[in-house]
Amino acid sequence: MQMQPQPRVGDPVAAVPSPALVIDLDAMERNLARMAAFARDHRLRLRPHAKMHKSAHIAALQVAAGAVGVCVQKLSEAEALAAGGVADIYISNEIVDVAKLARVAALAGRIRLAIAVDSPLGIDRLALALKAAGTSLEVFVEIDVGQGRCGVAATAAGALAHQVVSHGLRFAGLQAYHGKAQHLRSADERAAAIRHAVALVRAAQASITGAGIACPLVTGAGTGSFAFEAASGVYGELQAGSYLFMDRDYADNQPAPGAPVFEHALFVKSQVVSRGASHAVVDAGHKSHAIDSGLPSTWQRELVFANGGDEHGILHPGRDALPALGDTVWLVPGHCDPTVNLHDRYVAVRGGLADGVVEGVWPVDARGCLV
Amino acid sequence: MQMQPQPRVGDPVAAVPSPALVIDLDAMERNLARMAAFARDHRLRLRPHAKMHKSAHIAALQVAAGAVGVCVQKLSEAEALAAGGVADIYISNEIVDVAKLARVAALAGRIRLAIAVDSPLGIDRLALALKAAGTSLEVFVEIDVGQGRCGVAATAAGALAHQVVSHGLRFAGLQAYHGKAQHLRSADERAAAIRHAVALVRAAQASITGAGIACPLVTGAGTGSFAFEAASGVYGELQAGSYLFMDRDYADNQPAPGAPVFEHALFVKSQVVSRGASHAVVDAGHKSHAIDSGLPSTWQRELVFANGGDEHGILHPGRDALPALGDTVWLVPGHCDPTVNLHDRYVAVRGGLADGVVEGVWPVDARGCLV
Repeated sequence: MQMQPQPRVGDPVAAVPSPALVIDLDAMERNLARMAAFARDHRLRLRPHAKMHKSAHIAALQVAAGAVGVCVQKLSEAEALAAGGVADIYISNEIVDVAKLARVAALAGRIRLAIAVDSPLGIDRLALALKAAGTSLEVFVEIDVGQGRCGVAATAAGALAHQVVSHGLRFAGLQAYHGKAQHLRSADERAAAIRHAVALVRAAQASITGAGIACPLVTGAGTGSFAFEAASGVYGELQAGSYLFMDRDYADNQPAPGAPVFEHALFVKSQVVSRGASHAVVDAGHKSHAIDSGLPSTWQRELVFANGGDEHGILHPGRDALPALGDTVWLVPGHCDPTVNLHDRYVAVRGGLADGVVEGVWPVDARGCLV
Repeated sequence: MQMQPQPRVGDPVAAVPSPALVIDLDAMERNLARMAAFARDHRLRLRPHAKMHKSAHIAALQVAAGAVGVCVQKLSEAEALAAGGVADIYISNEIVDVAKLARVAALAGRIRLAIAVDSPLGIDRLALALKAAGTSLEVFVEIDVGQGRCGVAATAAGALAHQVVSHGLRFAGLQAYHGKAQHLRSADERAAAIRHAVALVRAAQASITGAGIACPLVTGAGTGSFAFEAASGVYGELQAGSYLFMDRDYADNQPAPGAPVFEHALFVKSQVVSRGASHAVVDAGHKSHAIDSGLPSTWQRELVFANGGDEHGILHPGRDALPALGDTVWLVPGHCDPTVNLHDRYVAVRGGLADGVVEGVWPVDARGCLV
């Protein structure tokens, strides 16, 4: 593959070719500090989800600010971040494939690793792989706290924890993440969803202690709900990730009482490449920003963004008039995680989007790590 | 970045780690031959859109079957495919950025290149860039034939063509692609949309010949509409791309009279990693398959696929019972173009998805080429 010319450190923002994934470093660092302070103040472990940023460099910034490590969803994400120097990773997801579990066991020999389980078959295969490799890791039992996706019923947690321990594996506690709670718009709805999750966590803890096993830690929570998990008294570790970049969808939530305010720090730079009488067309479509959580908004211009397909966005006038041919338009993605996954690199900018300068060009190390 | 273990030529399909982007080579080759025969029989140039497959290897297969070259949407796609040996590329899209136009002009010195324009500013800047580089290319004027995106009104085509010629550039004809026509479900609706497009093409041709300029070629058409453009007598070149892989969304169209039948040839391999009483969870979410045109269908299993987020798909029973933990489930993506863009490589399989063998592992050369 041909090497494309890339943005360079010291370039003005104006010289960065569009579309580009741009971090406003000043905003990101404020978000980083606010979340780190929240976790410290609540005496909770912070283990941000790196499936969001997929960057070893950003993971290192989070750890430097007090995080114990990061979460990922995929084996290959863990391998890529470990290769980038991340030393403490939790795969907060299930793996049942024998060949993949051999890779998990090998990785456990190189870094501090944890993984989630929710089936007897998965536990048996994990135990075999670890035995064959002579390595060890920590095992969380996932319970379904309302998402309807992975995880066993709370009352079944004790039996799985018992199986984990019976294999001589280290039982680390409960994975209890409520994905569906994150984007309930009112804070009251999210509070109610997490109350329900907490009741299930308590039931699972009872099931585990009933089996004569200690439950060291409950881990979960996202950017939409972490203030409620923090207040519950049962969660010991927060997995929130999106707080660092804040996407359009999270900003649409009513804020939770007591949660820090986070700023938009992730943008897609786009340019008007065609201009009609009543619309403008920018060079960023849904190959540049994910639309699973809705379309992007236009930053500091009130325009109506319409989906123009893979490579185009169509702008209609809002409170503001249409931009001119050649103008830069900054987009706030609807959902940061899959947007980041579309890009090979971050352009990290200091001094704002209008007059800033490129301070770093960071690879999205785990981009496309699906396995 | 750490090198992940990759599928190898000769591996059985069963050994390919999921999620993976898999081509059924036998089906793809039948699609390739059918479209090539259609273009030959209609004495039309075929210039398939490579924004769909982003692969120099596949472009070469298309050219070997009779295509004159390929289209792309982005400069960096053209650069990546040219680096992979593709010698005739049409950027069927507008570029107005001066730095990018300098790259266009440089590329025009290495391969046979064409580009679309729809603004006086774009033409002026293109002409300056080509003059500075001392290179040349072919210029198509884009008209809006019903999409409401890029392109000028048909009656304005003559003025732009005149400007192109005045700069000493080679005016190649009209870009007249009707994106919105592609997924109108009934063949009659698509026929009507293309009748409308053809009327606008004729108006644009009149505007151009009225300016004393010949209009050598009309190019456009997609997999949903190409039979109508072919029958029109005004289009000389077809840009259809998706025919090669056929996604779920195109298969939902009522077939056009006279169009060849295309088969699904592109799949995402997934695996059941969690199994509840009433649902199963596979390891492929919308980081593995684009959902802009709806969710994937399950191949040869009648199951209901629900969006499980970035990394998961949730299966509910359909006519068929749920798969077991560890089972392979093949997905037919809703939209092939942005699905391909999520993957680094194709696993090309000969002999079918059940018992086939890996015949090739091909890079998605232009994956992530957004600029």
